[in-house]
Amino acid sequence: MRIVKSASNENSTSEREDWYQDLVLKTELAEHGPVKGTMVIRPYGYAIWEAIQGELDRRIKLELGAQNAYFPLFIPEHFIKREKEHVEGFSPELAVVTHAGGKKLAEPLIVRPTSETVIGASFHKWINSYRDLPLVINQWANVVRWELRTRMFLRTSEFLWQEGHSAHATQDEASALSRKALEMYARFIEEFLAIPGVSGTKSESERFAGAEVTYAVEGLMRDGKALQLATSHELGVHFAKSFGTEFSDQNGVRQTPYQTSWGASTRLIGAIILAHSDERGLRLPPKVAPVQVVVVPISPDSLVRRAVAKLGEELTARGIRFYVDERDETPGFKFNHWEQKGVPLRVEIGPRDVKAKKAQFVRRDTGEHTAHALTTAGVRAWEMLQQIHDGLYDQALEFRTRHTHRPKAFTEVTRILKDEGGFVELLWCGRASCEAKMKRETTATLRVLPFAKEHSGRCGICGNAARTTALFAKAY
Amino acid sequence: MRIVKSASNENSTSEREDWYQDLVLKTELAEHGPVKGTMVIRPYGYAIWEAIQGELDRRIKLELGAQNAYFPLFIPEHFIKREKEHVEGFSPELAVVTHAGGKKLAEPLIVRPTSETVIGASFHKWINSYRDLPLVINQWANVVRWELRTRMFLRTSEFLWQEGHSAHATQDEASALSRKALEMYARFIEEFLAIPGVSGTKSESERFAGAEVTYAVEGLMRDGKALQLATSHELGVHFAKSFGTEFSDQNGVRQTPYQTSWGASTRLIGAIILAHSDERGLRLPPKVAPVQVVVVPISPDSLVRRAVAKLGEELTARGIRFYVDERDETPGFKFNHWEQKGVPLRVEIGPRDVKAKKAQFVRRDTGEHTAHALTTAGVRAWEMLQQIHDGLYDQALEFRTRHTHRPKAFTEVTRILKDEGGFVELLWCGRASCEAKMKRETTATLRVLPFAKEHSGRCGICGNAARTTALFAKAY
Repeated sequence: MRIVKSASNENSTSEREDWYQDLVLKTELAEHGPVKGTMVIRPYGYAIWEAIQGELDRRIKLELGAQNAYFPLFIPEHFIKREKEHVEGFSPELAVVTHAGGKKLAEPLIVRPTSETVIGASFHKWINSYRDLPLVINQWANVVRWELRTRMFLRTSEFLWQEGHSAHATQDEASALSRKALEMYARFIEEFLAIPGVSGTKSESERFAGAEVTYAVEGLMRDGKALQLATSHELGVHFAKSFGTEFSDQNGVRQTPYQTSWGASTRLIGAIILAHSDERGLRLPPKVAPVQVVVVPISPDSLVRRAVAKLGEELTARGIRFYVDERDETPGFKFNHWEQKGVPLRVEIGPRDVKAKKAQFVRRDTGEHTAHALTTAGVRAWEMLQQIHDGLYDQALEFRTRHTHRPKAFTEVTRILKDEGGFVELLWCGRASCEAKMKRETTATLRVLPFAKEHSGRCGICGNAARTTALFAKAY
Repeated sequence: MRIVKSASNENSTSEREDWYQDLVLKTELAEHGPVKGTMVIRPYGYAIWEAIQGELDRRIKLELGAQNAYFPLFIPEHFIKREKEHVEGFSPELAVVTHAGGKKLAEPLIVRPTSETVIGASFHKWINSYRDLPLVINQWANVVRWELRTRMFLRTSEFLWQEGHSAHATQDEASALSRKALEMYARFIEEFLAIPGVSGTKSESERFAGAEVTYAVEGLMRDGKALQLATSHELGVHFAKSFGTEFSDQNGVRQTPYQTSWGASTRLIGAIILAHSDERGLRLPPKVAPVQVVVVPISPDSLVRRAVAKLGEELTARGIRFYVDERDETPGFKFNHWEQKGVPLRVEIGPRDVKAKKAQFVRRDTGEHTAHALTTAGVRAWEMLQQIHDGLYDQALEFRTRHTHRPKAFTEVTRILKDEGGFVELLWCGRASCEAKMKRETTATLRVLPFAKEHSGRCGICGNAARTTALFAKAY
């Protein structure tokens, strides 16, 4: 993938979209569904989702103490309307069931765009005493948000996600859990997807509909655009109040619990594609790659076959997901095929290698070729997968560092956002009017107010006293 | 749970329904959702589903060679209409989205009741050559079937399931895969859920809408009613023809592939409840029990606490899911609580036990109390969980054997089905009119034509020459 120089150029934007879509289709990650804006997640893409799910589920249970549950897909229309900001935010995107079982329904049903309201109704039943708190619930589910402009994995009418929901006795506890969820996502995204994220708070205009505070992890993609990777919300008492949920505290006084919600979705697969791909195709982080090592025998020679079988045993013993490509195709064809598919490590073994007791390793992140003793090839492959993870992460971090700008003059800000892309870090006065001006002049949005940044000085947009540091970028 | 003597009695039927619903609610497996016919699967119920999913997913991949994928929730109305029998079978149960994004849709969207059609469209794209076959795909998803009479887990408007779909070059291969899937379900249900199933073929009237052959595993519940536990279908070329799917065989001739589909759902949780529960509450099979062992310290004594901690370490080392109940409640309260929740094994440790270096074990399946040396209590617990699985299975098998009748006279058949419940095994002529007569006179349906049964003799309903053995029962 090119680092596009002129992000304002319409042609190059649509070229980039073609490039992305072609790659998703060619590598068989996904394809368009029959209904506009939907997608079929094909086995190669779904295996990445399974790897994400497995590890994220483990962390959500272990680090946040959550229990999984499942809530209905259909939400009565009057539920969604209970929280005013929530319904205002979501109503343009709702899909509505009006008929079922051959009859018109008395009340239309909303296909869940998110589950705060339906979970709010259960929380109302489950919470009665301080002993019932904290309550931390997670759900893996599909949700529907009717979108006009869709792109596979990044923005689809239906997507898969997990949504966590918690209730707490105090605002401090709720806030702490919400921050802890955000940190969990940021670490997971670094440690599993090899993407460095910027964590922070959203401005009011980008806040979740019905939240008091929205936190997010933002990533910088290799085309210079930002992508929101995960979010976590402090919901205050909004939803608890709408559902009349109260608990008796230790003194028997009725109180309203504070809630949070937090989620990550199949969009993470889009992030992997946009953060790591190069001219040759995908580069999958080893921890989520469906095939971590592809072994290509250079000839059908029986000595080669024996060496490959021996290596296969060692890879199996180390729990490495590998594939031996014995198809009737040329080695060159296979190399290209697996490079495009983003397999982190290729091991080639030919007759000369067997004679020299060697295997050839080719890293997908650097393209580097090295020869390794056959006797220790299994353990070397295992070590190299960790190095490839680090390699991808370092490249992404280096890219982000190089494309995070701190210009002084506003004309320079607009030039960078229009021509170069990347993050622009500015001091900001906190006023929506400045945020709106930036959007109007550059189409860039305020991605996040990064944690623990300086805030003394002048707003980079209006010149008034600054309140905080803000990160701007064009975004998906 | 009583074995109801008079299944035809309306009062006792509704009593049983109350009993079932009360148990589901009290044990916190699930609760009703806000939309009629939907349910919230609570953490205790969802943990059972996670155990089922984990093992079934492993077997589906390993034994059937399936790959997981995900297909859209929304199906265009004209898709569902492509296969005539399919749409006739499902149309009374469909939920329809008519509006989305604030507008009326040009074409209504069906919320998937099953995914043959939307997967058929993808198969059409993916299959072009014999090299693309066999294609074996599995999906974990929610589906919606609008039902009038609903019961949590057994029949809900929305439920969770896996649906497998395959395509093959020949009918024989398709048939073999369909049978293999059925055998996988039957073994899983025995080995994991401790329920003995009867496998066989469905009669034409009970066949899946659009299938040529439907296989099923049927279980007998402790109230004498049958419950369908899993199904597998040979779809012939119906769906491939509707989507124009063809492949080039080894001679370059275009052929139509044969398809199958097979599924199991959250209904399996209903089966666990109905097959194993007794007067005191649930009895969960150890392999799916969220808590396999509950440890109840009889006093807060520090020696007791030390013994409990030691046992906890041993249980952890053996991968046993356990819970130490240190709540401020009486031991009797705790015993009742965990018995109702169906925890397979209770371990009690009091000061006298510690002195005697013993722990008291109480099996949920038999109620048996035994004392075991503290030093080996961990390994004994592990062994006993296997024995409890076998104990539940043997009781269920013994129950089924005792309630499988082979009456000669039709008057005896109707008396048994009306008054005693259970399975009635009969020779059958194969005619739908006899099946209909049975249903009219007893409300019992033909559950399955068991594999490898005799078929020479006279039809137990009309007296004409028999073609097969059929199993009748009242069913959920």
